[in-house]
Amino acid sequence: MSKRIVIALGHKALGTTLPEQQMAAKESAKSVADFVAQGYEVVITHSNGPQVSMIHAAMNEFSKKYPEFTATPMSVASAMSQGYIGYDLQNAIRSELVSRGIYKTVSTILTQVTVDPYDEAFYKPSKIIGRTLSKEEAEAEEKKGNHVVEVEGGFKRIVATPKPIDIVELDAIKTLLSAGQVVIACGGGGIPVIEQSHHLKGASAVIEKDTIAGRLADLIDADMLVFLTGTDKVCLNYGTPDEEPLSFIKVSDLKGYLADDQFEEGTMKPKIEAAIDFIGDSAVRKVLITKLLPDKNVELGQEGTMIGK
Amino acid sequence: MSKRIVIALGHKALGTTLPEQQMAAKESAKSVADFVAQGYEVVITHSNGPQVSMIHAAMNEFSKKYPEFTATPMSVASAMSQGYIGYDLQNAIRSELVSRGIYKTVSTILTQVTVDPYDEAFYKPSKIIGRTLSKEEAEAEEKKGNHVVEVEGGFKRIVATPKPIDIVELDAIKTLLSAGQVVIACGGGGIPVIEQSHHLKGASAVIEKDTIAGRLADLIDADMLVFLTGTDKVCLNYGTPDEEPLSFIKVSDLKGYLADDQFEEGTMKPKIEAAIDFIGDSAVRKVLITKLLPDKNVELGQEGTMIGK
Repeated sequence: MSKRIVIALGHKALGTTLPEQQMAAKESAKSVADFVAQGYEVVITHSNGPQVSMIHAAMNEFSKKYPEFTATPMSVASAMSQGYIGYDLQNAIRSELVSRGIYKTVSTILTQVTVDPYDEAFYKPSKIIGRTLSKEEAEAEEKKGNHVVEVEGGFKRIVATPKPIDIVELDAIKTLLSAGQVVIACGGGGIPVIEQSHHLKGASAVIEKDTIAGRLADLIDADMLVFLTGTDKVCLNYGTPDEEPLSFIKVSDLKGYLADDQFEEGTMKPKIEAAIDFIGDSAVRKVLITKLLPDKNVELGQEGTMIGK
Repeated sequence: MSKRIVIALGHKALGTTLPEQQMAAKESAKSVADFVAQGYEVVITHSNGPQVSMIHAAMNEFSKKYPEFTATPMSVASAMSQGYIGYDLQNAIRSELVSRGIYKTVSTILTQVTVDPYDEAFYKPSKIIGRTLSKEEAEAEEKKGNHVVEVEGGFKRIVATPKPIDIVELDAIKTLLSAGQVVIACGGGGIPVIEQSHHLKGASAVIEKDTIAGRLADLIDADMLVFLTGTDKVCLNYGTPDEEPLSFIKVSDLKGYLADDQFEEGTMKPKIEAAIDFIGDSAVRKVLITKLLPDKNVELGQEGTMIGK
């Protein structure tokens, strides 16, 4: 049986505007293709921060100007961003594979992820999104029940980042993987939804992409979770004269480093937490945190930081 | 083996604004669930006319106002519309199935469809899209190489409707269907793309949703293609005192009616053409053209017009 791998692409791997995204997707596709070429069953998840903010802002400015069009909630903007990004990404990966003589279907599954309506994250929103707002715009947002924070030059919206529970379309992802296809899923963390009887209601929230990558890897019982990011290796004492890059970390040691506050909130910390949760007690599961590796073959263990039992 | 069916949802089955779409998707989901409950393997395709126009306009007005965001081509807007509509649709179908005690994964596959760059449709664009433009805006569009036509109150963009050739993600659709799952694919006709060496390039075009529904039904070797539309039955002499609704039409007779110009361009005609192409010489394949049937079970042959050999 093939080994399964989840590859999480961060913001640097995707850019923001369309030309940037197309270029970045092309580079990221090389790393993805390296894993496919080595015989892995690959599922890709990706960030959508700048894209979903852009789409959300564009749709809502439009509906203000033309009131016949209704407002677009964050959950719908997230669904649209999965189309926006998935299209470029599945294309770039397909092209890269075809250029290597590998003919595999690459597709994007529009993915919803359930969250708990009582998740404490809803009481303390922490993710800043969207463009800078004027004082009047910020007040209008607050009147609608949305949260804002003051930033340089004005205000920005801030949303909750609840923990993912289940991936609604999980069986579709598993079925395609088992058929040897490449799948893009849980884009932007997935569309956050809350179960209400038989219905799933969009939540005004964002699911942290590193957290969902770990949850997805767990649910499909992956052998490895790879974070393709802007950093070469995980470091201790990051950004100090004592900075120490690590090539391998035991998960038991990693828990200590985490308790020591070694990792930056919002960037490395969620990856480390996802790694610890995913590996758990497994002697098999591994996490690789590494820089994008265009134009060379990934020799596992040669690049980045490997985490395991 | 289960029978396979493609259900094509028209504009009436989906509405335009988000609240309309959510209501309409809920009603359409009942008809879809009726077929699933009868044991069919179901794939759903849908129209995206009003939605893609809205998204395209919103994104491009935004990029004019904030030039750091680049313009959004029609192909990217189409990808976004598959997210926008698929999210509501997969949710509505899932809810309807769960309420009937049927637990099946329902997912949307972001779908690209190849077209021929030399398709004659590119030389005579025929599909009117988007909001009404001023003379200045229309001239700006023409400068960018886009086509416009005069309409009441101004101008509108007009794009080509080339014939679909291949569905790029076909194997993903087939794999999910064979696993007994419900699939939404080729939304809005699919993202039109042109093959350029290993790469697929988005085309400034729209694929007619009835045509792709027929092509999809053919490629997955469906037993039946169902057009859920605003009309009760296919009629001869439609809209005249001699109007004659038909419950069954032989495909050989249908060709004659088509040659007699019995069917309206842009509404019934593309469905009839798709039906003729899909059925071909098959003694098995059937096409049903019928009104949305909420709140009752579909008794095949009782409602709408059935077309067969």
